[in-house]
Parts: sequence; structure tokens; C-alpha cells
Amino acid sequence: MKSYFKELHYEVPARRAFINITHDVERCLQESGIKEGLLLCNAMHITASVFINDDESGLHHDYEVWLERLAPHAPTHQYAHNGYEDNADAHLKRQVMGREVVVAVTEGKLHFGTWEQIFYGEFDGKRKKRVLVKIIGE
Amino acid sequence: MKSYFKELHYEVPARRAFINITHDVERCLQESGIKEGLLLCNAMHITASVFINDDESGLHHDYEVWLERLAPHAPTHQYAHNGYEDNADAHLKRQVMGREVVVAVTEGKLHFGTWEQIFYGEFDGKRKKRVLVKIIGE
Amino acid sequence: MKSYFKELHYEVPARRAFINITHDVERCLQESGIKEGLLLCNAMHITASVFINDDESGLHHDYEVWLERLAPHAPTHQYAHNGYEDNADAHLKRQVMGREVVVAVTEGKLHFGTWEQIFYGEFDGKRKKRVLVKIIGE
Repeated sequence: MKSYFKELHYEVPARRAFINITHDVERCLQESGIKEGLLLCNAMHITASVFINDDESGLHHDYEVWLERLAPHAPTHQYAHNGYEDNADAHLKRQVMGREVVVAVTEGKLHFGTWEQIFYGEFDGKRKKRVLVKIIGE
Repeated sequence: MKSYFKELHYEVPARRAFINITHDVERCLQESGIKEGLLLCNAMHITASVFINDDESGLHHDYEVWLERLAPHAPTHQYAHNGYEDNADAHLKRQVMGREVVVAVTEGKLHFGTWEQIFYGEFDGKRKKRVLVKIIGE
Repeated sequence: MKSYFKELHYEVPARRAFINITHDVERCLQESGIKEGLLLCNAMHITASVFINDDESGLHHDYEVWLERLAPHAPTHQYAHNGYEDNADAHLKRQVMGREVVVAVTEGKLHFGTWEQIFYGEFDGKRKKRVLVKIIGE
């Protein structure tokens, strides 16, 4: 069994954004040399997500509006977590979108459907954050 | 290390439905011959889910009503994604229910609690769609 | 390839609670002797979650209030599932928080970001329930 990991870094200038990281993850898979196995990709921060969906800007706008409706940022004092911080909503949004994805590796490639793309979802940005890629297989 | 995959196909006549796919996944596990490992089962489409919960029709009705409340289909023009399509709500519902499950394989069986069953959740049906089963172990 | 599993037991005296199980999972990893691989930790019950977030009591209060707003327990007769039971809301809350986490194992440790902690989320307690830890690797 082979194993591989890499920590990727992303810094988003806004509080919230979605970044397509599929190519970065594919580069990890190539580096690993693993042909058959499982790939884990997860946010290493608890106010961010890694998820799989469509690379379509209209949809990303819809996610932003929808998440803000389900777990609004303001008023920040509505959350007990917001004593010294103002990011409680980011911890909630991340649960809806998820922490991680697990992707099959088949014949050296991400075994994806036609429209599957991997995104980093930032909900409390303006600082450098880490995403982990771990691959096991052979 | 052994690895195995199969793409399963489901075509739902309605826009939305929940299908119990546990037996199909168990058949894959038997075919694989893997006794100890991890099994990934994921929707290959971004308007569908694979999740684990109860095979109880009342609960499935509750999920349908609840998801429609959290992310309503109509009016379709409320979503930026719905230029040429009308399925933005399906992309949102799928995030709540999740893309994938990872299941332990122990002594050749899905290592499940008493009531755990695997479901395919369709949110934009009326066409053939794929679910991936990938198993690694030995 | 090595594989390991253990079923952990938790009994929560209240209907709902969040329990930090990170140390229990770390103990499993030590017992397994696995240095590189993937660790799956999942609720074996369908009214409970395993998730990763912050060990901060204010945030846990926020999760409780937020989940109760997204999927209220009462009135119980609003749910079709609640014929003989009163836990439909628990099945819904568990979908928001998730069934499972997959964690990278690197150099014999959970490969975590600074604040990542594993929680058992109970939404229908007052009885003994099981959490599965499965690890594969070498």
C-alpha cells in the first residue's frame, strides 16, 4: 500500500468565496503515483468546507444567498459563540456544505461524473488556510 | 491491496425520490471478494445524493417536505442558476443530504448499525443517472 | 494492509447533546498500530451524528438553537414519521450535521488542523448508542 499527503494553502481576500481546487487535487494525485485507491480532501479549518458540485457562477451566487438565509452572519450578537469572534455563522454554514469529500481513484484518475468539480468553500476568509489531500492505494 | 468499482444506474420517473440501494451495494461487496476495508458509495451527479438513514416511508415524506421548505423548487426564477435550467434547488438539496457515504467493511459485510440503510436521493430525475461504488481492502 | 475496528458506546442522559470523542478515537488509533492510512468514524444510529468542529460551549449552544430552528422537535405531529415515535426531527438534524467523518492518519496521528475535534452529536438520547471506528492502512 502506498500513501501520500499534501497540505494546500488558500487565502481568500473576502469573508466568503468558493474556489475550484480540482486541478490542485489532480496534481496531488499525479504526484502520488497511486492508480487505484481512495482520496480524501478536507478543510483543516472549522469555518471552511470542501465539497463537490458544479462550476457555475449563478449556482455559487445561489449558495451564497441560501447559506446566508439558513445561517445569517448578522446580527452577530445572536450567536453565543460571538464573544471575541464574529464567525459563528461560518461554523454553521460549513456543516451544511460539509468538511470533506472522499473520491475514488481509478486508473490513476479522479473517478468523477461529467460535472463533478471539487471546491474549497471559505466562510471566514482574509487569512491563509489549509486543505489536506490524503491518498491511499497502490 | 484489492480494489473494485462498479457504476450502478438508476432512472427515477419523478423529479424527486428516495431509493433503497443497500442490496445493490451488498452485491458489489460480494463481487469484490473484499473482507476488510472501506467502501465508498457516491452520486456521480451533482443534483443527487447518497445517504444513510431509515427505510420508513413516513420519514421519506418528512424529508421531502423539509427539503422543499429549506430549498424550494418554485418559483424557479428566484435562483441565478436557473437561466436555461430549473434545477438549482436540486443542487441545494443535495448539499443537505450529502454526496457520499463511506462504510466500513468487516468480515465481508457492511458494518452497519441495526437500522442503517443506503439510499439514492434523486432531486432532478426523469433521466438515467449513475452511482459509484468503490471498495478497497483485502 | 492492516485493518482495525472498535465500537464505542455512549449514553446521553438528555435528548440532545454534543460529546467530544477525540481522545477515544485517538486511543483506537494507538491500539491499531496503523501509521499511514484512513480512519472512518461514524454513528451506527440514524438519529445521531459524528462531525468535526470546535470544542466551544457557546458554539454548541448555537448549534442546538440553529438545528431546532431548521428542524423543530415540536409539535411532534407535524412529522409523518411520528406515529409510534417522536424522533423525526432527530433524523433531520442528523442529515445537517452528517453521519461520519473520514480522517487522514499520518505518522501515527490524526492529521488535524489546529482546532479540529471529533464530536458525537446525539439527537435522540436517553439510551446506549454505538459509534464505529474503522482504520485501514499500514
